[in-house]
Amino acid sequence: MATEPQRAPRRKQALSRDVIVSAATEILDAEGEDALTLKALTVRLTTGYGAIYHHVADRNDLLAAATEHVITRIVTGLTDHTEPRQTLRAIALGLFDAIDAHPWVGAQLSREPWRPALLDIYESVSTQLQALGVPQQALSDSAGVLVNYILGVAGQNAANARALANSKLDRAAFLATVAAQWTQLDPARYPSMHRAGAQLREHDDRAQFLAGIDLILAGIETVNRTSEDNATR
Amino acid sequence: MATEPQRAPRRKQALSRDVIVSAATEILDAEGEDALTLKALTVRLTTGYGAIYHHVADRNDLLAAATEHVITRIVTGLTDHTEPRQTLRAIALGLFDAIDAHPWVGAQLSREPWRPALLDIYESVSTQLQALGVPQQALSDSAGVLVNYILGVAGQNAANARALANSKLDRAAFLATVAAQWTQLDPARYPSMHRAGAQLREHDDRAQFLAGIDLILAGIETVNRTSEDNATR
Repeated sequence: MATEPQRAPRRKQALSRDVIVSAATEILDAEGEDALTLKALTVRLTTGYGAIYHHVADRNDLLAAATEHVITRIVTGLTDHTEPRQTLRAIALGLFDAIDAHPWVGAQLSREPWRPALLDIYESVSTQLQALGVPQQALSDSAGVLVNYILGVAGQNAANARALANSKLDRAAFLATVAAQWTQLDPARYPSMHRAGAQLREHDDRAQFLAGIDLILAGIETVNRTSEDNATR
Repeated sequence: MATEPQRAPRRKQALSRDVIVSAATEILDAEGEDALTLKALTVRLTTGYGAIYHHVADRNDLLAAATEHVITRIVTGLTDHTEPRQTLRAIALGLFDAIDAHPWVGAQLSREPWRPALLDIYESVSTQLQALGVPQQALSDSAGVLVNYILGVAGQNAANARALANSKLDRAAFLATVAAQWTQLDPARYPSMHRAGAQLREHDDRAQFLAGIDLILAGIETVNRTSEDNATR
């Protein structure tokens, strides 16, 4: 029986757009946006530039495709939730977790806001707000506020998590440090923070994020109910 | 009359903590966080390391002092507004503009959340929420949501503005590009975005930001009114 020829250290997959986008996502997750170069991709996929350019137009196209890969599955296929409020919470939390896991996504969404990823977010939020009874003239502003909140707070959370990962503290130790510092504050000068120090160890960023979604939705319903009342008077 | 000795190109000011913090803020604004080194400061102030260390403990201390310098004047001295809702809007808008002008501030506020700048933000927001009638047990969460929104959305806005400044487009040209892209979308697939394209040229980020503050405040009042109703039943 003839010996098989020695294999390359990494088994070559058939190159497709999906394989390239997955490899790009791995580089982005592990090393951040600056690490994603076409050269890094050729090394990781043991292929040449020509083979990659056959499937993606340029680095911009690749970043957009990787962003879409992360985002689109969150904002589509959520039709099982029949209650729009629950669907909105699921979209928001899905995006929060995705941006936590893939911190480079936030910057990509803002850079070219005509790419499908951002469009799908806005469109799905708008659809749910319509189902919630938000009138046409208030829809664009309400969706804008929700999307700003989701991307802003999730982006901040991801940046904090990354900064913490670069420091020597883990999250529990960091919260304990903050709690200790707040508890020691002068209660006359900082009454709220002094009290908050006692509760901080149980602080849950996701729960706090969702509390904001709920308050914004309550605000949207109140404002639109009020304007409806005024209109029927 | 004797000739004056030749002056150094930059007139030496008497070195104080204020002078050092102002110089640090100028470096941070012009060149970003990485550019702020003790060496850069000695060059700008034509002085030595010893003179600087006489006034500030280390680079961390300097960053915190620069952050405080930007933030504290916004959240204090707002007592002229007697209506808590107006004061909260003024605080939020003041922070939005400050983070737009000094984009490095956002990261600093999260890094060491026991420094006066973040404490002053939380405390002033909490005080105004109390004046608005928010009960003690809801205060910490409500203030947390508002502060998360302010820092998250303002941070995202500042990052977008910086990314735009690094590109070749100005803001009007960028908005025109986005509007054109959105208007061309298939109205069957993206009905909301297709409509939004028509309004985008008049888009005002500050107004959209404030609309979010108003919705969150309306939500906070609604939620607390409801729980009050339940309690008195």
